Amino acid sequence: MTIVRQPTRAGVRDAAAKIAAILPQTPLLTAEIRGVTVAFKAENLQPIGAFKIRGAWHRLTALDDATRAKGVVAFSSGNHAQGVAWAARRLGIPAVIVMPADAPRVKLEATMAMGAEVVKYDRASESREKIAAHLAHARGAALVPSFDDPWIIEGQGSAGIEAMTQSVEMNLPDPARVLVPCGGGGLAAGITLALPEAEIMVVEPEGWDDMRRSLEAGWIEPVGDTPPPTACDALQTMRVSPLTFDVLSRRGVTGLAVSEAEIRHAQRWAAARLRLVVEPGGAVALAALLAGKVDPVPGLVVILSGGNADPQAYAHVLGTAT
Amino acid sequence: MTIVRQPTRAGVRDAAAKIAAILPQTPLLTAEIRGVTVAFKAENLQPIGAFKIRGAWHRLTALDDATRAKGVVAFSSGNHAQGVAWAARRLGIPAVIVMPADAPRVKLEATMAMGAEVVKYDRASESREKIAAHLAHARGAALVPSFDDPWIIEGQGSAGIEAMTQSVEMNLPDPARVLVPCGGGGLAAGITLALPEAEIMVVEPEGWDDMRRSLEAGWIEPVGDTPPPTACDALQTMRVSPLTFDVLSRRGVTGLAVSEAEIRHAQRWAAARLRLVVEPGGAVALAALLAGKVDPVPGLVVILSGGNADPQAYAHVLGTAT
Repeated sequence: MTIVRQPTRAGVRDAAAKIAAILPQTPLLTAEIRGVTVAFKAENLQPIGAFKIRGAWHRLTALDDATRAKGVVAFSSGNHAQGVAWAARRLGIPAVIVMPADAPRVKLEATMAMGAEVVKYDRASESREKIAAHLAHARGAALVPSFDDPWIIEGQGSAGIEAMTQSVEMNLPDPARVLVPCGGGGLAAGITLALPEAEIMVVEPEGWDDMRRSLEAGWIEPVGDTPPPTACDALQTMRVSPLTFDVLSRRGVTGLAVSEAEIRHAQRWAAARLRLVVEPGGAVALAALLAGKVDPVPGLVVILSGGNADPQAYAHVLGTAT
Repeated sequence: MTIVRQPTRAGVRDAAAKIAAILPQTPLLTAEIRGVTVAFKAENLQPIGAFKIRGAWHRLTALDDATRAKGVVAFSSGNHAQGVAWAARRLGIPAVIVMPADAPRVKLEATMAMGAEVVKYDRASESREKIAAHLAHARGAALVPSFDDPWIIEGQGSAGIEAMTQSVEMNLPDPARVLVPCGGGGLAAGITLALPEAEIMVVEPEGWDDMRRSLEAGWIEPVGDTPPPTACDALQTMRVSPLTFDVLSRRGVTGLAVSEAEIRHAQRWAAARLRLVVEPGGAVALAALLAGKVDPVPGLVVILSGGNADPQAYAHVLGTAT
């Protein structure tokens, strides 16, 4: 087993500088909720529609020339795939993405359109981890994890650095409380490192709130054997990583869980009030706020982490009231 | 009749500086269309969901103290109402907005929530112009037109100044061709003044393309007696103004018309590719591009002018394929 380094705030700062050189800041939008001005970090407006482009860029730019020549391998059915494909194309690095054969056609096509080679696997009979490891080994390529990696965590944390500088520019209070959607915890850990003075809270769908339970228990607890169905495809991680857990745990981060109905309400609110398309997993932090599970305070920042919603499912959510 | 001054590029520059002091820039997002990088100015992300906040701010801040004390009057069923209400609240100016009694409830409520006094009228039997003029006269208040005013035009033009500076910051070509949704022509005239080097094209819904016909004819032609139904409530202006027409005509601006189906397609594309909610009238410029009625060229900027879509109608558009 390789000894991995810990992610650091200096690494987050470095990532933020690298990302500022290539990507415009995502906007920090504001709206008043229960009398308090709340800021929304619109990561759904990244070119790939999600924050994953940050970690992928920081990770791939840290590879040496020999590794770059051999390429990168990642497995993901969604946003991480597009982040890696985007960064690889910009750097001229060959990328192989292992995706389930039944992944949404739009996500398969978007990944291929960015020049990545897509290797499909059968969810029922094959292991994507094994396929990806085999491909990486055979080609000498670097495996790019979706959250269990210090560069990935630091890269995602650049969103927190941006939120801080934008708060200053916009004459808003410093970020005092930040609500972050949580799957494996890469974004939450990065933002925790980015903002040492802020209270960080992670939000997960009900039944998938293993980070919340883990933080409460003091050790990593996986998702249960039969988790309920959720629309949050981006947050279906069965077990968080020691790297992300340790960052959050040391800081005393706490977690919240939201229902599917609360998530749909948040998607509708974001469309009507912020004019943003937010996917279910990207809307969980907003859902916790709107459901009254956390109070708005001056300096509250809500991360809207992605907007790659399935068109038909999204239309259905907008067209219904509950 | 009062002699009005002409809007100028210096006025647009002045408006841009005033607006930069109070509102963050709306993002300039990019996407590739037919192999060309196209920039999208997301005015739907303004706090009120539309560019109208710009002209209202430039107009209201230009009022002297005596006029401010007496207040402002505007008539509008939608975005201009909210722009004036927003600016008036920030400046502590009393605002009366004349709105049709059957205006969408969300727009009535949003305008009232911003502290404006709303006077309702019956569309069938009353004239909003007369009611507004009467109110303004009785109170000594200033009437704030929605496009037929040099300050309003200059204020809207600040979107063009922003697009120019953002293009430089983002290392994009200077705006070379700008597609602008057109109702009364205030936004288009302002952007024409803002960007003297760019080719400006206005886009209207079919049957409401009176600016296109006027520019072709060389004089102002109104909308016909029985225009077809359109989802673009924000663009239903029966006659453009000499102020806006002259700016466009002197520059040789041309116009395009788009069908309702092309507009719906553009709304779906904006949701899927840009993760933005765009109202029908805000999507007409994008519709012209996607329909192949104009070619993408380096430096192409498409204005997405508003995002205040009726929730049910919007859900229906997203859920259907044509």
